[in-house]
Amino acid sequence: MALEIERKFLVLDDSWRESVRDSAYFRQGYLNHEIDCSVRVRTCGDRAWLNIKSVTVGTERLEFEYEIPLDDAHTMLNSLSRKPLIEKTRYFVEVGPHTWEIDVFEGDNAGLVVAEIELEKPDEIFEKPGWAGEEVTYDPRYYNTSLAATPYNRWQ
Amino acid sequence: MALEIERKFLVLDDSWRESVRDSAYFRQGYLNHEIDCSVRVRTCGDRAWLNIKSVTVGTERLEFEYEIPLDDAHTMLNSLSRKPLIEKTRYFVEVGPHTWEIDVFEGDNAGLVVAEIELEKPDEIFEKPGWAGEEVTYDPRYYNTSLAATPYNRWQ
Repeated sequence: MALEIERKFLVLDDSWRESVRDSAYFRQGYLNHEIDCSVRVRTCGDRAWLNIKSVTVGTERLEFEYEIPLDDAHTMLNSLSRKPLIEKTRYFVEVGPHTWEIDVFEGDNAGLVVAEIELEKPDEIFEKPGWAGEEVTYDPRYYNTSLAATPYNRWQ
Repeated sequence: MALEIERKFLVLDDSWRESVRDSAYFRQGYLNHEIDCSVRVRTCGDRAWLNIKSVTVGTERLEFEYEIPLDDAHTMLNSLSRKPLIEKTRYFVEVGPHTWEIDVFEGDNAGLVVAEIELEKPDEIFEKPGWAGEEVTYDPRYYNTSLAATPYNRWQ
């Protein structure tokens, strides 16, 4: 169990690509439509996890994560998850002492690029790079749960 | 992953109590309201599990179960689960080659007693004991997910 503090920003341009340290392709889906709690199945390479998170608009969340067999995850994503699934490549970019995670979405959310920074406390100071634009931490449309219900290609 | 085949019956009297082999107290709750998929947290003694099951009216279901830390389960049941929680004592009764599970509910579902038998194939032959009454396998009111939404004490 972890208390997760994240802030989320839109991405203005591609200049972050020069500083990518690593990347990973995620395929994930949700087993529920709850407003206050998400149950996510995620695969990345040959590993998979089940993640349970309290969903509150803002920065602090209760989170649990368990690794599960990859075959179980594939079956759950194909048979039990809400569609569309979320497909994205996450790029890791170091800025000072922090690692930013930049999610470049595909499929029904193609065109959307969002950057997240995880903090240890809500008022922690961090450097906001030039490519980071408007903060959307408090905008529920950008939750992955929302993107599974109303993907970016259906936004007005 | 397992394909689960269960048949469920109401219980007519207490005569099954003479044949109880074992029993266990369960406290459980659901992390979703889905019609087609349940996500359940269950504690029993000092152990806990996360269970994911396709919910289809009838006998065959897709099921996944993972053991999780007890403290995580308590936090999820107290903070994230739908209320009321389901509390029940399950009694194990051998009848011929099969084990029946008799659930005696407490809390908001007190008064309800249901017996289940798990089969290896849908048309498997089994002995129906004298204490087993009407079959309710196909009645969605008796699903534990339903009992968490509309507990027995609120039935008309």
